[in-house]
Amino acid sequence: MKRIALLGSTGSIGTQALEVIAAHPDQFSVEVLTAGHNAALLITQSQQFRPNAVVIGNEAHYATVREALDPLDIKVYAGEKALAQVVEMDTIDLVLTALVGYAGLLPTLRAIEAGKSIALANKETLVVAGELVTGKAREKGVNLYPIDSEHSAIFQCLAGEWHNPIEKVILTASGGPFRGKSREELARVTKAQALKHPNWDMGAKITIDSATLMNKGLEVIEARWLFGVRPDQIDVVVHPQSIIHSLVQFRDGSIKAQLGLPDMRLPIQYALGYPERLPAEFPRFNFLDYPSLTFEAPDKTAFPNLQLAYEALAKGGNLACIVNAANEIAVAEFLQERIGFLEISDIIATCMERVAYIAHPSLEDYVQTDQETRRQARQLAIRSISS
Amino acid sequence: MKRIALLGSTGSIGTQALEVIAAHPDQFSVEVLTAGHNAALLITQSQQFRPNAVVIGNEAHYATVREALDPLDIKVYAGEKALAQVVEMDTIDLVLTALVGYAGLLPTLRAIEAGKSIALANKETLVVAGELVTGKAREKGVNLYPIDSEHSAIFQCLAGEWHNPIEKVILTASGGPFRGKSREELARVTKAQALKHPNWDMGAKITIDSATLMNKGLEVIEARWLFGVRPDQIDVVVHPQSIIHSLVQFRDGSIKAQLGLPDMRLPIQYALGYPERLPAEFPRFNFLDYPSLTFEAPDKTAFPNLQLAYEALAKGGNLACIVNAANEIAVAEFLQERIGFLEISDIIATCMERVAYIAHPSLEDYVQTDQETRRQARQLAIRSISS
Repeated sequence: MKRIALLGSTGSIGTQALEVIAAHPDQFSVEVLTAGHNAALLITQSQQFRPNAVVIGNEAHYATVREALDPLDIKVYAGEKALAQVVEMDTIDLVLTALVGYAGLLPTLRAIEAGKSIALANKETLVVAGELVTGKAREKGVNLYPIDSEHSAIFQCLAGEWHNPIEKVILTASGGPFRGKSREELARVTKAQALKHPNWDMGAKITIDSATLMNKGLEVIEARWLFGVRPDQIDVVVHPQSIIHSLVQFRDGSIKAQLGLPDMRLPIQYALGYPERLPAEFPRFNFLDYPSLTFEAPDKTAFPNLQLAYEALAKGGNLACIVNAANEIAVAEFLQERIGFLEISDIIATCMERVAYIAHPSLEDYVQTDQETRRQARQLAIRSISS
Repeated sequence: MKRIALLGSTGSIGTQALEVIAAHPDQFSVEVLTAGHNAALLITQSQQFRPNAVVIGNEAHYATVREALDPLDIKVYAGEKALAQVVEMDTIDLVLTALVGYAGLLPTLRAIEAGKSIALANKETLVVAGELVTGKAREKGVNLYPIDSEHSAIFQCLAGEWHNPIEKVILTASGGPFRGKSREELARVTKAQALKHPNWDMGAKITIDSATLMNKGLEVIEARWLFGVRPDQIDVVVHPQSIIHSLVQFRDGSIKAQLGLPDMRLPIQYALGYPERLPAEFPRFNFLDYPSLTFEAPDKTAFPNLQLAYEALAKGGNLACIVNAANEIAVAEFLQERIGFLEISDIIATCMERVAYIAHPSLEDYVQTDQETRRQARQLAIRSISS
């Protein structure tokens, strides 16, 4: 029985993780649930899964949650500090971090410090501070199980192959809803269009990242740290059907791929059950439904974000942290319909030039970089709006 | 250093295996080479690789080979008996059986009895007597490393997954040179057309088997024994580009595939080097050279051989042995241009009806079934010629 803390239980990954857990009551129990704002869903989930403790990030909802869960003998905490502390509970075996964005970093680090296994759905943790996080995980002997479908695919392909040198990892990208569009066309796309992902049903932030290809850029950085490969060993290929989730090429030239219908429950279940593949009733892939799988190079001119991520990775230091923070602000502004689609990458590129470069950042440096980048990105967004 | 006996060194697989061995002189040494008829090439190979012993199957060439190799202090033997015995030498670690057809069975069994690891390029060994051979391998604790590209792909996908139940294996098939043709068109195809495989450069027997889809049928049977799956767990999908070499679907629905350019040196090297992937300079696959990978159902009406193989597997006993023997004769007759393309499956189907069924055959029963089937298949071919 694995006892799980689920950070971010009310989001897209969080709710799907609870589906997986519910399907395997003999394998998993829920120790902790945390949510940011969605008190109502957190209460419903807690009533069903009976965790030992819950945390609601937004302290305004504390009383509501407390009142609802007190009769069930569930401990209730609130606030950012509690979110980070709760992962240290003795009864937790594995922490699934399904938080969105930079907010995932500190709780994940705390969980690693506490020696918990990590199922990582929060790529920003590795994007912002991959060297620090993976270094700490090695030091503590903690395993990081990726949940991103691409990294899960690579992780699955590496089963039984860890002794064999990787020549290359190949991340597949759907290309998003705007694949094939020119910069002129992209200048006019709307938020509603950007939120319509062709294959995956995901949260708003990652859906926009997918439309700008920044999601793939972040994944390139994540892959660099998860699998210890050099940036030039990471390729991206656009594969609009999202059936092949990613690939590994070994030094004999042999390539292994993991594939299936786009369904996040599978990588979630693999991360939770590893090394066991538990039975699942997820719909099966059939080649006859997909008579043609297609592949093309990503368009780095129309979608500069992917290139920016590679640049950040090449220069190292705090640059990936800058890219991530600028992107989080720019995407939020786009979702508010305050800036256009092309401004997203403009803001990131400008922040990469302006925010001070730090070659060997400490955790404190990352926190500072994040804050400073957000400040500058917001200013750039305001200037863009008023111009 | 693995010391290798290479049975069938002068054929397509044999010569490619020697390329692999030559590229890794620190990993492999050649202990034994055997060939059927090609004395000249056997001599050249022996001069280069300096085995301890060689066997020439055709005794008429004994003197020639002996004379050439005596000065090099290489022991020379001849005849069928020597072919089977030589695998028992103490100095051999691994036996690569690259013999064509039924002839591979007895030497492979002898090698298993002697406790040698087996790299198996001879699928007929498992087709004819898969239950007996894999049972003996289990009893002796002997590993069978498949060299067929499809089975190597599955074997590669199973690395690190042996504890996870297989839901399905999916064998890919190129469809051969006659994919899409109707039975009317197939009635008129020539030997020269049948020998032009679109993707793979292989020996004549297997190339014809590929054109008739019998190769895939034999591989279905081989997969059943190698991987311990039921016939209904084995699917075949036609994939004309031959890039995805085969796939495994696990009980969570996740599918793993092995892919790359069609190049038999890779599965040969994987079998020889297992569990190490040795470096190799084989040309690399690039998705941008293959913008579309396509898939379709096999046409079992135009190509009945695949169906016949499934039937043989379902009924069990000596039926797969009958299918194999009838096919070997029919293909030989087609290569002599004595029967037409469609007669190949007619002869197999008739033999399946006429040769006595044995539910639990002994090795001697297999030998008898093979001889009796060949006799009947030859008669059917003669009748077909005279009609």
